[in-house]
Amino acid sequence: MKEINEVVERIVGRLNIHLRKINLNVDVYIRDLLSHDQLAQYYALYCISVHDSFGIECNRSSISGSYIQGRCVIDDSILYKTDVRGDELKNRGEVLHYKDLASPLFGDERIVIRNSFLHRTLIHNYSHVPEHPERFYILNTVSMDHANIHGSPMEGVFLDAFSTVDHTCCKASTVGAYAYVQSGELTDTRIEPGRIFLTDTDRFTFDYMHDAEILGRYVRAKPGAKPQGILVDLMESLKERFEPAFDAVGSCLAGSAPPGACVNPYSVLHGETHIGKNVLVAQRAYLEDSWLGKGANAQENCCIIHSHLDGFNVTAHGGKILYAHLDEKVFVGFNSFLRGLPDQPLRIGEGSIVMPHTIIDLQEPVAIPEDHLVWGYISNSRDLETHGISLSQLSDVEGTLEIGRMRFTGNGAAFTSAFRERIEHILDANGAYFDGVRNAGHAQKSRLACFYILQPYPYGPKEGLFPSIDIRS
Amino acid sequence: MKEINEVVERIVGRLNIHLRKINLNVDVYIRDLLSHDQLAQYYALYCISVHDSFGIECNRSSISGSYIQGRCVIDDSILYKTDVRGDELKNRGEVLHYKDLASPLFGDERIVIRNSFLHRTLIHNYSHVPEHPERFYILNTVSMDHANIHGSPMEGVFLDAFSTVDHTCCKASTVGAYAYVQSGELTDTRIEPGRIFLTDTDRFTFDYMHDAEILGRYVRAKPGAKPQGILVDLMESLKERFEPAFDAVGSCLAGSAPPGACVNPYSVLHGETHIGKNVLVAQRAYLEDSWLGKGANAQENCCIIHSHLDGFNVTAHGGKILYAHLDEKVFVGFNSFLRGLPDQPLRIGEGSIVMPHTIIDLQEPVAIPEDHLVWGYISNSRDLETHGISLSQLSDVEGTLEIGRMRFTGNGAAFTSAFRERIEHILDANGAYFDGVRNAGHAQKSRLACFYILQPYPYGPKEGLFPSIDIRS
Repeated sequence: MKEINEVVERIVGRLNIHLRKINLNVDVYIRDLLSHDQLAQYYALYCISVHDSFGIECNRSSISGSYIQGRCVIDDSILYKTDVRGDELKNRGEVLHYKDLASPLFGDERIVIRNSFLHRTLIHNYSHVPEHPERFYILNTVSMDHANIHGSPMEGVFLDAFSTVDHTCCKASTVGAYAYVQSGELTDTRIEPGRIFLTDTDRFTFDYMHDAEILGRYVRAKPGAKPQGILVDLMESLKERFEPAFDAVGSCLAGSAPPGACVNPYSVLHGETHIGKNVLVAQRAYLEDSWLGKGANAQENCCIIHSHLDGFNVTAHGGKILYAHLDEKVFVGFNSFLRGLPDQPLRIGEGSIVMPHTIIDLQEPVAIPEDHLVWGYISNSRDLETHGISLSQLSDVEGTLEIGRMRFTGNGAAFTSAFRERIEHILDANGAYFDGVRNAGHAQKSRLACFYILQPYPYGPKEGLFPSIDIRS
Repeated sequence: MKEINEVVERIVGRLNIHLRKINLNVDVYIRDLLSHDQLAQYYALYCISVHDSFGIECNRSSISGSYIQGRCVIDDSILYKTDVRGDELKNRGEVLHYKDLASPLFGDERIVIRNSFLHRTLIHNYSHVPEHPERFYILNTVSMDHANIHGSPMEGVFLDAFSTVDHTCCKASTVGAYAYVQSGELTDTRIEPGRIFLTDTDRFTFDYMHDAEILGRYVRAKPGAKPQGILVDLMESLKERFEPAFDAVGSCLAGSAPPGACVNPYSVLHGETHIGKNVLVAQRAYLEDSWLGKGANAQENCCIIHSHLDGFNVTAHGGKILYAHLDEKVFVGFNSFLRGLPDQPLRIGEGSIVMPHTIIDLQEPVAIPEDHLVWGYISNSRDLETHGISLSQLSDVEGTLEIGRMRFTGNGAAFTSAFRERIEHILDANGAYFDGVRNAGHAQKSRLACFYILQPYPYGPKEGLFPSIDIRS
């Protein structure tokens, strides 16, 4: 038997044990997902930016097509076209605070991926788990296409396609397709497909459920098959465009990014695209005939087509924006899909927040006012009434607010200020506020990044697996 | 102080101790040879072909621009655009024979480069040293542009530009520019520039000395300066042609090499070039408007321009061939320079041998008959009389033969048969005789090679040095 099959067997067996209470057999999801050919065909990238110590260790694993940054250990795992962005790993001596408890780091933090199968998944590392701040663990976990593991250590978890787990320590749980969860902790839980659930237990809960039929047009996932729908078609249509980028030895400096900006060589800029100062375009981001104003960022797997972003915009991992004009500081959450009309772009006013996993696909012109929160599904002005609220109105809520399929409970002001703080943190961390000397962030630090190209065994019993790799500063 | 300077200091200090009897200070040769910029600019390639176990370890070293294949350890060294070809490393259990003594290998052989500075050097590994067959050592050694370390472990050696040490265990010695030595062992010896010295102590000695003035036109080396001359100009003129090759992630399969042949992606084929079956084109070989018949090989740093090689030709590391027609099984030795007239190419008959470090630069048409040995410098038919002999005539020699500046002593038949055996070994090892199933060699085994791209620190105190690297099967 090919050795890679044994790795897959072991992952399936271990995860099924974790999920025995939920009674899910992940075997059917991944058994036939990848051929050896595919795994042997793609190299992996290891990015070093040398501002921190770095190091990758990889044993008995395949990391084909993956892009890895920061200190990372990968054992007995299959990562396929998975991005591991470890640029916010904490260093020895730093202190992680959890309410009034302090957890100082005894060593540099590392991402540890073990016995896991991650398929086109995005991992970003900023973990809030105080129990073991030196390790960001992803253990016995399986995730499907375009899932996001965001600051969320996990053990024994199944993530279906286009799902996101955000700042949540997750154990023995499943997260359905296109579901988003941010809940601090999650154990022995099954999150349904299309559910958007965000809670800070003591302070607020935001809960929305996508209509299954509508969502199915955009993303539908069946065990053992590739996900389908408009979002998948969009991603597929761009595949070819990425080939030349991945045929070349990339250099962040090779492009002509303006001061403070960074265009990752493994992103694609197509047509006439403007990149402003301090802009960060991450790997696998796709930009076409678009304008990114000062301090905007286009994160991994996002796609911005025929759109204008005024500046200081956050387009989170996997966000898609087509035919839209976004004013300053508009935030577009994970895996959202925004599509205006070619002749009348979707307009979103300054400071507005598009919740993660929101679908806006216009049948008529719509303008979202400034300082608004929108969520769910919007295709016309009527939808907007049941899928949006001004942030000032929301701030006044204390108790329960139900609008359409959305139910909010708790303190509205706490929710909005937490969200705004987070957006400021993201802009700051990405270097949007760099003044030439101070406030450097990912955009500036990544300008001198360079890339290791790591290869799998091209054939033989180890085909698709990678040799043992240990590279460290 | 930049850390890389400390590495250079240590190498110089250690080598000067080895060379104290010879009284050479290598400091002046290398102190200002490389800027940090240069070292930080180039990535290194690690080639895996997975027919054998493989592994690279690299510590406190720079390997910028280098191409490395096979099991190799590099510590405290600077390798700049140096090719380490370890495709003939012996494996555990193999037995190395030295006359009637047998030396079985207790472990897989590795190349160990330690405390050395190798500048555009070619290392090929087939070592005949029976004392430590598990290690091919290159210790406390400095070598200059386009030197060849061929199957020659060394300790405390200085090799000047375009010199070759071939199957010789070399200690505390210096080898002058464009000198070639093959003597089994060499200790506390200074080999003058332009000397061609080949001995099998008991059986024969071939000794030739280039005319200094003529040689100076082709290669001249001064301490602390780049070498100059026609050979250097030729190499410089091709630099640009290599840039696109090194900008891409290479794949041996990407080209359209015929069955059994291998065109390394880090070689350049320019104009109309024909590649026959079982041809091996190694990395950094340059071919322009030329024909390579079945089983021919073009080794590292060789250059074949407007020439026709009928088949089963060996063009050894660094050989240059311009405007020439070579019949079958013509052998062109290391760093030779052959240039015919554009309208009347140099013709070399079947089975002839061009000695290493031979310069043939025609002022009038010349044809070298079949089964001839030529050496030294040839520009016209008169030169040929004093720089060539038929192999059958040479085979009859027993004692001393002086022709022009060449002195041969010993058994001519032993010399010619040793040479012919070696050529057969080279053709066989390179896969020239592959029949689709049997006799596979480097050309066939390298077809599925893939390449790791390894990066130096781009800036900071470690600029130009590489992180610690350990990649192993």
